[in-house]
Amino acid sequence: MSISMMPSPRFLRIARGEEPADLALRDARVINVLSGEIYRSDVMIADGRVVALGDGYEAREERDLGGRYLTPGLIDGHMHLESTMLTLGQFARAVVPHGTTTVLLDPHEFANVLGLAGIYYVLDAARGVPLNAYVMLSSCVPASPLESPRQPLQAGDLLPLLDHPGVRGLAEMMDVPGVLRGDFDVLAKIEATRRRGLAVDGHAPGMDGHALNAYVAAGIGSDHENTTVEEAREKLRLGLWLMVRDGSTTRNLGTLLPLLAELRPSRALFVTDDRDPVDLTTRGHIDAMVRRALEYGLDPIEVIRLASYNAAQYFGLRDCGAIAPGYRADLLVVSDLRAFTIDAVYKDGRLVAEHGGPLFDASHDLAGLEGMMGTIHSAPLTLENLRLPGHTGPALVVGVEVGQVTTRRLVEEVTARDGYIVTEPARDLLKLAVVERHNHTGRVGLGLVKGFGLRRGAIASSVAHDAHNLVAAGASDEDILAAIAALREIGGGFVVVAGGAVLATVALPIAGLVSPLPVEELAARLQALDEAAAALGCTLEHPFMTLSFLSLSVIPALKLTDRGLVDVAAARLVPLQ
Amino acid sequence: MSISMMPSPRFLRIARGEEPADLALRDARVINVLSGEIYRSDVMIADGRVVALGDGYEAREERDLGGRYLTPGLIDGHMHLESTMLTLGQFARAVVPHGTTTVLLDPHEFANVLGLAGIYYVLDAARGVPLNAYVMLSSCVPASPLESPRQPLQAGDLLPLLDHPGVRGLAEMMDVPGVLRGDFDVLAKIEATRRRGLAVDGHAPGMDGHALNAYVAAGIGSDHENTTVEEAREKLRLGLWLMVRDGSTTRNLGTLLPLLAELRPSRALFVTDDRDPVDLTTRGHIDAMVRRALEYGLDPIEVIRLASYNAAQYFGLRDCGAIAPGYRADLLVVSDLRAFTIDAVYKDGRLVAEHGGPLFDASHDLAGLEGMMGTIHSAPLTLENLRLPGHTGPALVVGVEVGQVTTRRLVEEVTARDGYIVTEPARDLLKLAVVERHNHTGRVGLGLVKGFGLRRGAIASSVAHDAHNLVAAGASDEDILAAIAALREIGGGFVVVAGGAVLATVALPIAGLVSPLPVEELAARLQALDEAAAALGCTLEHPFMTLSFLSLSVIPALKLTDRGLVDVAAARLVPLQ
Repeated sequence: MSISMMPSPRFLRIARGEEPADLALRDARVINVLSGEIYRSDVMIADGRVVALGDGYEAREERDLGGRYLTPGLIDGHMHLESTMLTLGQFARAVVPHGTTTVLLDPHEFANVLGLAGIYYVLDAARGVPLNAYVMLSSCVPASPLESPRQPLQAGDLLPLLDHPGVRGLAEMMDVPGVLRGDFDVLAKIEATRRRGLAVDGHAPGMDGHALNAYVAAGIGSDHENTTVEEAREKLRLGLWLMVRDGSTTRNLGTLLPLLAELRPSRALFVTDDRDPVDLTTRGHIDAMVRRALEYGLDPIEVIRLASYNAAQYFGLRDCGAIAPGYRADLLVVSDLRAFTIDAVYKDGRLVAEHGGPLFDASHDLAGLEGMMGTIHSAPLTLENLRLPGHTGPALVVGVEVGQVTTRRLVEEVTARDGYIVTEPARDLLKLAVVERHNHTGRVGLGLVKGFGLRRGAIASSVAHDAHNLVAAGASDEDILAAIAALREIGGGFVVVAGGAVLATVALPIAGLVSPLPVEELAARLQALDEAAAALGCTLEHPFMTLSFLSLSVIPALKLTDRGLVDVAAARLVPLQ
Repeated sequence: MSISMMPSPRFLRIARGEEPADLALRDARVINVLSGEIYRSDVMIADGRVVALGDGYEAREERDLGGRYLTPGLIDGHMHLESTMLTLGQFARAVVPHGTTTVLLDPHEFANVLGLAGIYYVLDAARGVPLNAYVMLSSCVPASPLESPRQPLQAGDLLPLLDHPGVRGLAEMMDVPGVLRGDFDVLAKIEATRRRGLAVDGHAPGMDGHALNAYVAAGIGSDHENTTVEEAREKLRLGLWLMVRDGSTTRNLGTLLPLLAELRPSRALFVTDDRDPVDLTTRGHIDAMVRRALEYGLDPIEVIRLASYNAAQYFGLRDCGAIAPGYRADLLVVSDLRAFTIDAVYKDGRLVAEHGGPLFDASHDLAGLEGMMGTIHSAPLTLENLRLPGHTGPALVVGVEVGQVTTRRLVEEVTARDGYIVTEPARDLLKLAVVERHNHTGRVGLGLVKGFGLRRGAIASSVAHDAHNLVAAGASDEDILAAIAALREIGGGFVVVAGGAVLATVALPIAGLVSPLPVEELAARLQALDEAAAALGCTLEHPFMTLSFLSLSVIPALKLTDRGLVDVAAARLVPLQ
């Protein structure tokens, strides 16, 4: 990933025109984000970098672009690799053909499961892919004290990593109360990051006024949680860089395009946050945002800045995001600018993708992954552990919201038999269970959930934000038990079970989060999985996405962790009845 | 100068609205360079920083701006304090009322006279002024091997200073051949600077094409030598930040305004480079550039960005150049935006100037200056030392160009008597002498000069770029000798002498470059000095400015140093005849 900053004497001789370059891209229509112009020029490459623009240069290898556009490679300023369920190698194969050459990864799912080892996996794997994969250090593991990761990450664990060349800062600071109160630990983490000239990303959905002033005053530098123009405008005004997000579930680009057109902000950039494999194969990545913004009518140079240069500025990546001497030769050949048709992708001066397909494999991928397998460390589970004591009468129920990561806090009449509450699939009242899986504690959180529509069977997942314990929803305890057992069998992933039989699985053996498969195969299996759930009556389009967020204790309103039911607003456990 | 980055708990309580701020600027019309908007808001200040914008805050001290504009303090991105001939304290008194709150100083004149001590003077003095005075380390002392400073500054002298918090990078890299050749020492200096995230300023007048590509490829980040739109455009395209200069002699703003209007570059900023005291009192400082750009019709937000925010971005000054929580409260109250009338200046939240006048003195100034006095270390000089051997016939003559720092290489018929060439004031043919003054070497360079118009007498200066030996031009050897003696007498400065009598002096006892006087007094004396020279027949408006550049061996065409006549293009000494 890293190339030396100091130019070689040969590099300078090439720039002076005294020696041939490695590669000439002739007659490019350069999208120059530095001057804000588009013009025709030759672009010369040596040592993996742009060495010169202009006329009168020779090269060992020639490619005539015939007036096609040349843009800097695209940058995703905030994303979680784990949401793609791909190894870094397979992820690169999926997105590099879409023009992404730099990503800022917050590996906080890995970090919940594996601690620092999860962060080091990404830093090490980054060496083997044609992608600048930088890490933002996960600032909040666990997301709250009500969650149970493998082990908490302390400030002291993270600080030495700030000096790693692959680290560009501190990831989304979700501990908003800690920031606003000015907790010393939190401020020290921010300060240590800023002192090194690195970025501190924020996470402040809906925040405004006095709280927002305090959040910014504490040293936060950006936010990707912007759901209205007014929210985004206030954040820009107060100094936060605006990360315009277009994830698979949470999509803000459409909402924010009018603001981008109005203000043409230099302090805005594109991010995807969470993109699932199906979405990656059907819509693409940052290129999809570029297309959308171009269709809306934004100036092409502005759009390319939003998708490359601006992010490089925010993260201090001084050799990314533009086409000029000394910059990395991360370049896209684009034949139709409006349609943003990417004919070819160069990474560090090498042709790595053409016409939508990668020209590299992911063979480096499995090295270093051994330590990330076999991460389901749960105690033996019996039907007894799944019984939910209670009485007939009103009870709290987690209310699923279609296509959202939030839930509603429902109160429903429930029925008990022999002192235990029963599920009522006919009323869409299922049992929800979260089984601790990191440290053999045997801890199981139990509750009720409404909204999946399962008539029978159970579904279960080892993707369960943010601590990634095992989560299951089912019509019967027997099928929940079978589903959890099936999860253990495959080393983590997703399962659909009914009548004791496993109907569909997607194995995610890497940390229980990630598959070794290529994106197309994985996407196909996920679609088959969703179909199996639908066959059991499930009414949600993406039930596993929904399931995986039911344990996230920092997103409203009612959630379940291995410790019990969580009232998010109150930030505490609450009894079912 | 430095304030801690980490917010105090109190600072955050104020931001949250739970405690009163130190100062409220009510009903400001905020020029928000971050969002690109102008809107009305209260601006709250605590601990010397902006703590919040918006409503519902209380403060211990109130000031109602009544809808007047509030802009960030202005930044001069490249200048030499020594050109102002003021101490840092007096300079602050001169420019802070004009709205300048941050300057990037290249102390290379001090460094030629005093070595590292000259750089430390600026770093230390910066603590005592209401001005962010950052240092760019002088990259080329001496400017060439043909000049004789007190001692050369090696890379090894400079590198430790890169970690000083007051240092922001490496100043104008004038050793262009060294950069283009890729000299290891030069590249190592650049690399060490860039590795620390600091800036490397360039100096590449007229450079283009292959040479410019190589200059940028070597790691240079900016240039202030842009005399045409096409030159500036190519530099922007290739990745150099465009420093738009408006000095006292070299003025490029007018030329470059059309480019600024066309491209609205985010990578452009205002600099003054060299401003003399008269200019400072009559025209002002960066505010004069703001006015000029506004008159031209540039968008006010763009203009303020050019004069503040953009420079902060280039230099990585993350808490300067904008009005938002956590930024330094360096603020200008402006009543008429188009005329850019600055009513008041706040520095670190304190009112430091009002209606054009400073509210602070320069009493800190003289501390630390003792070591900078008494710097004329020249050997005894006699008439014998000033005799110029030669014969009647053609000889090289330095041809002064009005208002320029360049000279012409003239060949004139000269007359010799007894083996020595004589001056011919009637033909405007004067003697030019450069007397080594740092190390008692007794070295004297002698030549002839045309263009001053002196009919009798002599003028002499200890300001003589870049090595600052003593330079004199005169109609007679006796008056040159008297002028050099007078310079020694006053510890350096400027003198006008005729018939052995000293007619006018301006003492610059600090390093022989700087006066302890306030700018108005100094400007008045300089005008009296020019008048004294005019009374002797001098036809130049600013003869001492011209005189001071006759020894600069890196600006075309024919110059004189203590080592002899310099053919600048050939970079070597040449004989007179």
